[in-house]
Amino acid sequence: MAGFNVRSVLVTGANRGIGLELVKQFLEKSNPPEWVFATCRDPEGERAQQLKNLASRHPNLEIVALEATDPASIKAAATRVEEHLKSSGLNLLINNAGIVRLSTLESETPEDMSLVYATNVTGPLLVSQAFLPLLKKAAQGSPQPGLSCSKAAIVNMSSEGGSITNPFAWQFGQVVSYRCSKAALNMLTKCQSLGYGGDGILSIAVHPGWVQTDMGSSASHQAPLTVDMSVQGILNVLPTLSKKDNGAFVNWEGKVLPW
Amino acid sequence: MAGFNVRSVLVTGANRGIGLELVKQFLEKSNPPEWVFATCRDPEGERAQQLKNLASRHPNLEIVALEATDPASIKAAATRVEEHLKSSGLNLLINNAGIVRLSTLESETPEDMSLVYATNVTGPLLVSQAFLPLLKKAAQGSPQPGLSCSKAAIVNMSSEGGSITNPFAWQFGQVVSYRCSKAALNMLTKCQSLGYGGDGILSIAVHPGWVQTDMGSSASHQAPLTVDMSVQGILNVLPTLSKKDNGAFVNWEGKVLPW
Ligand SMILES: NC(=O)c1ccc[n+]([C@@H]2O[C@H](COP(=O)([O-])OP(=O)(O)OC[C@H]3O[C@@H](n4cnc5c(N)ncnc54)[C@H](OP(=O)(O)O)[C@@H]3O)[C@@H](O)[C@H]2O)c1
Ligand SMILES: NC(=O)c1ccc[n+]([C@@H]2O[C@H](COP(=O)([O-])OP(=O)(O)OC[C@H]3O[C@@H](n4cnc5c(N)ncnc54)[C@H](OP(=O)(O)O)[C@@H]3O)[C@@H](O)[C@H]2O)c1
Repeated sequence: MAGFNVRSVLVTGANRGIGLELVKQFLEKSNPPEWVFATCRDPEGERAQQLKNLASRHPNLEIVALEATDPASIKAAATRVEEHLKSSGLNLLINNAGIVRLSTLESETPEDMSLVYATNVTGPLLVSQAFLPLLKKAAQGSPQPGLSCSKAAIVNMSSEGGSITNPFAWQFGQVVSYRCSKAALNMLTKCQSLGYGGDGILSIAVHPGWVQTDMGSSASHQAPLTVDMSVQGILNVLPTLSKKDNGAFVNWEGKVLPW
Repeated sequence: MAGFNVRSVLVTGANRGIGLELVKQFLEKSNPPEWVFATCRDPEGERAQQLKNLASRHPNLEIVALEATDPASIKAAATRVEEHLKSSGLNLLINNAGIVRLSTLESETPEDMSLVYATNVTGPLLVSQAFLPLLKKAAQGSPQPGLSCSKAAIVNMSSEGGSITNPFAWQFGQVVSYRCSKAALNMLTKCQSLGYGGDGILSIAVHPGWVQTDMGSSASHQAPLTVDMSVQGILNVLPTLSKKDNGAFVNWEGKVLPW
């Protein structure tokens, strides 16, 4: 972590769960980023209270409205972030916002298929498109060779549930809309690695483990991992990633997962 | 092919391209199915003319309306097919209907992401749900042990473009919405194999090759494979598949493809 010098980071879905913990741990680093952009759907509302408490203690934390299923909201967020960053770019974009809908193969609905995909796949696509100029600027402005999370990177919060090879505890919940969305997000990550690698941007899909958040606790079994442990793991893994990992799917311990 | 005894088969998107050729070759078999259900969006319209010509010569061909993005149309199609089949089930469901939208990572739109997913993933999910009782009936009524395409099977027409490992000719067109949808369709196939295997239903994802159809010709390069060759290949591969292949991703030559 000591070697992880990120000047600016943005985390979507940062008002609770893994997103909130990522923001906290970035702020508590011995060398914290100059800018931490924490996005959430409703910065004025009650659900952003924990972020507001953090912002009152950390002037480098900026809370920005971003609804992942609304292209206009995403563009407005990018404009706001650009105003803050002035001439510098964005180093690290973490597409963390996501939803799950409990379902079985037989009860899965078109409405959930559509909403889960819009949130978990189209959201990260559009957010990455909107912040691409800022990521490119960070890459161009960096003296570092190769690819890294401290230079310019897109981290997509995926799930082992999206691994087709290892269809993760089918008996714990079939969640077909979720699994299909995360397999598609893995494909998006691979496409981004092919499309943006030449611009100096690293693209990675990360499985955070099975974590004790609202989402992690929605299954019938107790999630084994605390949010603190998951995020500590992720923040240890990110600085180790380089060009050879571009487009990979890794977990919070740095283990490469199969598609 | 001689050993491929399918009593009833349904093909979606059967008015042109690979779907139409599948219908033709089933009808031309030396032992043709008792029932071939060819679905298309508008059986009354001009686009169904080739199917209507076939139907005038083949009394075992039934043209059924099915719009893959409309749950009510899918349910109505299942009701119609059930009326025809009377007490017997459906052996083989081929989810062939699909679309592509040309795009790059940067030009990809939320509208195309949504429409391509609804057609290529949610469509096959809903069609499989609607025809599940008929597939189960075919499996229960069959004296054959294990799993096979002549007993009861769901074949999802996927694409090598949906292989994350092998992101198929990135330079030929990035088609991110399409690739994400086919990776998700592969995941759906895996889920169906886990969910329906116990009911005696085989689930398979098939890549038909790069084929000279309207879709195959929309890329900048000429597709190498004729529709005839692709479908001959597929109809040679399907009868060879058994329980050990449940949930697999194979191409028109029977080669297993990586996720
Ligand atoms: N927890 C696990 O075990 C686990 C395992 C594998 C992967 N993951 C992935 O990790 C990520 C974070 O999960 P989590 O466990 O922290 O989930 P969580 O506790 O349910 O939090 C989800 C976050 O995403 C936000 N969000 C949802 N839909 C959004 C939208 N349309 N626009 C903007 N923000 C939206 C939520 O905001 P609101 O408060 O406004 O709803 C919330 O901040 C997700 O992508 C998830 O799929 C989690
Ligand atoms: N051609 C290739 O090289 C290739 C390669 C890999 C995979 N595939 C896959 O193979 C399948 C067939 O492709 P193709 O080359 O035959 O494509 P095609 O020539 O473009 O034909 C597509 C068929 O799908 C139907 N369809 C599209 N959207 C539909 C909807 N919403 N509801 C019902 N039907 C719909 C079309 O009907 P309309 O006439 O009404 O539009 C048409 O019958 C697709 O799933 C495709 O992704 C093709």
